[in-house]
Amino acid sequence: MLSLDKVFNAQLVLKNIIRETSLVRAYGIAPECELYLKPENLQITGSFKVRGSAYKIAMLSKEERKKGVIACSAGNHAQGVALAATKNGIKSLICLPDSAPISKVEATKGFGAEVCLVEGVYDDAYRKALELRDSEGYTFVHPFDDENVIAGQGTIALEIYHDLDNIDAIIVPVGGGGLISGIAYTVKQIRPSVKVYGVQAAGAPSMYNSVHDHKIECLDSVSTIADGIAVKQPGENTYDLVSKYVDDIALVSDDEVASAILALIEKQKMIAEGAGAVSVAAVMFDKFNLKGKRVVSIVSGGNIDVTSLSRVIDRGLRKSGRSTSLLIELIDKPGQLKDISRIIADCGGNVTGVHYEKGETESINGCFLRIEMETRDYNHVMQITESLKAEGFKIV
Amino acid sequence: MLSLDKVFNAQLVLKNIIRETSLVRAYGIAPECELYLKPENLQITGSFKVRGSAYKIAMLSKEERKKGVIACSAGNHAQGVALAATKNGIKSLICLPDSAPISKVEATKGFGAEVCLVEGVYDDAYRKALELRDSEGYTFVHPFDDENVIAGQGTIALEIYHDLDNIDAIIVPVGGGGLISGIAYTVKQIRPSVKVYGVQAAGAPSMYNSVHDHKIECLDSVSTIADGIAVKQPGENTYDLVSKYVDDIALVSDDEVASAILALIEKQKMIAEGAGAVSVAAVMFDKFNLKGKRVVSIVSGGNIDVTSLSRVIDRGLRKSGRSTSLLIELIDKPGQLKDISRIIADCGGNVTGVHYEKGETESINGCFLRIEMETRDYNHVMQITESLKAEGFKIV
Repeated sequence: MLSLDKVFNAQLVLKNIIRETSLVRAYGIAPECELYLKPENLQITGSFKVRGSAYKIAMLSKEERKKGVIACSAGNHAQGVALAATKNGIKSLICLPDSAPISKVEATKGFGAEVCLVEGVYDDAYRKALELRDSEGYTFVHPFDDENVIAGQGTIALEIYHDLDNIDAIIVPVGGGGLISGIAYTVKQIRPSVKVYGVQAAGAPSMYNSVHDHKIECLDSVSTIADGIAVKQPGENTYDLVSKYVDDIALVSDDEVASAILALIEKQKMIAEGAGAVSVAAVMFDKFNLKGKRVVSIVSGGNIDVTSLSRVIDRGLRKSGRSTSLLIELIDKPGQLKDISRIIADCGGNVTGVHYEKGETESINGCFLRIEMETRDYNHVMQITESLKAEGFKIV
Repeated sequence: MLSLDKVFNAQLVLKNIIRETSLVRAYGIAPECELYLKPENLQITGSFKVRGSAYKIAMLSKEERKKGVIACSAGNHAQGVALAATKNGIKSLICLPDSAPISKVEATKGFGAEVCLVEGVYDDAYRKALELRDSEGYTFVHPFDDENVIAGQGTIALEIYHDLDNIDAIIVPVGGGGLISGIAYTVKQIRPSVKVYGVQAAGAPSMYNSVHDHKIECLDSVSTIADGIAVKQPGENTYDLVSKYVDDIALVSDDEVASAILALIEKQKMIAEGAGAVSVAAVMFDKFNLKGKRVVSIVSGGNIDVTSLSRVIDRGLRKSGRSTSLLIELIDKPGQLKDISRIIADCGGNVTGVHYEKGETESINGCFLRIEMETRDYNHVMQITESLKAEGFKIV
């Protein structure tokens, strides 16, 4: 049974393993409320996950410790289990699908785990892990549906209360539900008036659907840039705890998540992964009524690969009108590019790319000109397109 | 006269204005030494600069406070002066060249300053600021060559000693020299055995040249992505202090700075601007002999605009072999793209862009194919190019 005692005990046990991440006051991200961030992206391993795994592993019996632990994950959970096992001096084996990125495999090995690459997808790796658990006697460390894991995540709530009083609401990313179960349970025992809100990605609304339909549901597929919370089905324990203790759950779109990642970079000089930023996106895009409230958003992790980060930044720049792509239909005659260049330069746009494209233009002598520009904001983009139209150019 | 008393006094005065930024242990960036970061990118205003300006402003006489302060800067100094003046309830005027980016102008206004846009470049804005100082009686806040400003920056050394003992070396970015003067002076008074090393950008080596030639020198031009330390000439005070107290100065290239920014993102989930990352670049690329040492790198600021950040990431990905562009010379006949796609896919490369280009190929029927790919590392790139060559393709 989960109990407040367990959460307090977890805090003691974790003391020399994890970092206590201090709350950071975030100015400028959501001016209408008093926003604090719990930066678990700065946690050791780059994610809160190490808390739950480390407490689970610390609670194993002597016999279990001798045999070691096994887990199945390509992400933050794998690194948490690996580090926690290594710090406790026990063996860990992580099953991964063989399609997992090399960088994740290397990071997991780097924390001291053995890696078992399994042909196929996640489900195949999961089955293999259960097989090995049964045949070799490893303890399986579930990523979320386990009371000790949940108690470990609950320590975040204790740290928040150590840092700050009179909180109105805590906003928590939700994948399988381990993090929010630990936090909501703990908060409702010690400060029941504080609201606990969950956030899922619109492309992976498993807990959201389950809670609304009052039964555990399984999604056929998930698709979101917040890959750390792309979970098809809630756990049994976590479903019960969320149903009982969480005040509301909202969904955010990938574009909203990308904007939140960008805001954290610009305003807080901090890198969050998609899953880590959903709680900030929910505040920015007003998913709960938080005007004038003192709010803590859990930034649950920062492990985003740089290629994805680069794409998110590009998307964020486009979304906020700071990078723009215009397709202009032209009559193919000399001087057109010169005129367009002049108009854009006069407006203060900075051209970064130009491509001519053939295509189904009205005139047989027509063509399309694709212009990539750095711009200041939407108004600036409007000003440029209006100026182009005023001189007779047709924006497609 | 600069004195240790002034630095201690500055620490008291700054207590309620700035954040005390805690040292962060950085794993994995420079495995051969024990590296800590002093994260002044997380400082209020996103840079250490506020320390010096705030102490300078706090020390003004009643008469001077009534008239207000003036400064000339398009960057971190402007924001530091603006915030410090606002917190002290006095007026600030910042002169900027009218070519300054809108975002910088808005940020400066956001901290409560009046902005005076001056036609021309930085030097014109500087002259205008001095004119206004003389005609209106404002106090000019110099970005670095001022003893109170230097004393303010010195408080960083006191905070480092509060957090950590037995340090071997402190690595400091150098532009005009205010930051390193404050730190080196303070360190050498309280722990003279600790080495203090400076780092400049190879494209703006003003202090480096001056110290080596034993006289203040002025560069004709500067060019670096570390724009916060692109200073043409050291100050008189800072030149003297650096000559006396700094153990060595090294230069880092723009590519090294980009790699350091990327490493801070990936390993520490932190955004640094170019100037802020030079101290980490110096450790990564072994500019001083620090093997086995306990080292603190000052990450002086995090104010990099997202467009530049996006470019730095792209460059960093290319430098580390995680994104690659190949130019392949082709005979213009059907099936070539199919074969190339197959070879790349078999090697596990992820194609992100394809362009046909005409050009001076050997055969008149030739053309060039430019392929953009996501790759794992240099070995992966080599593997792909070798496979292409083995099937007869010519990489240009």
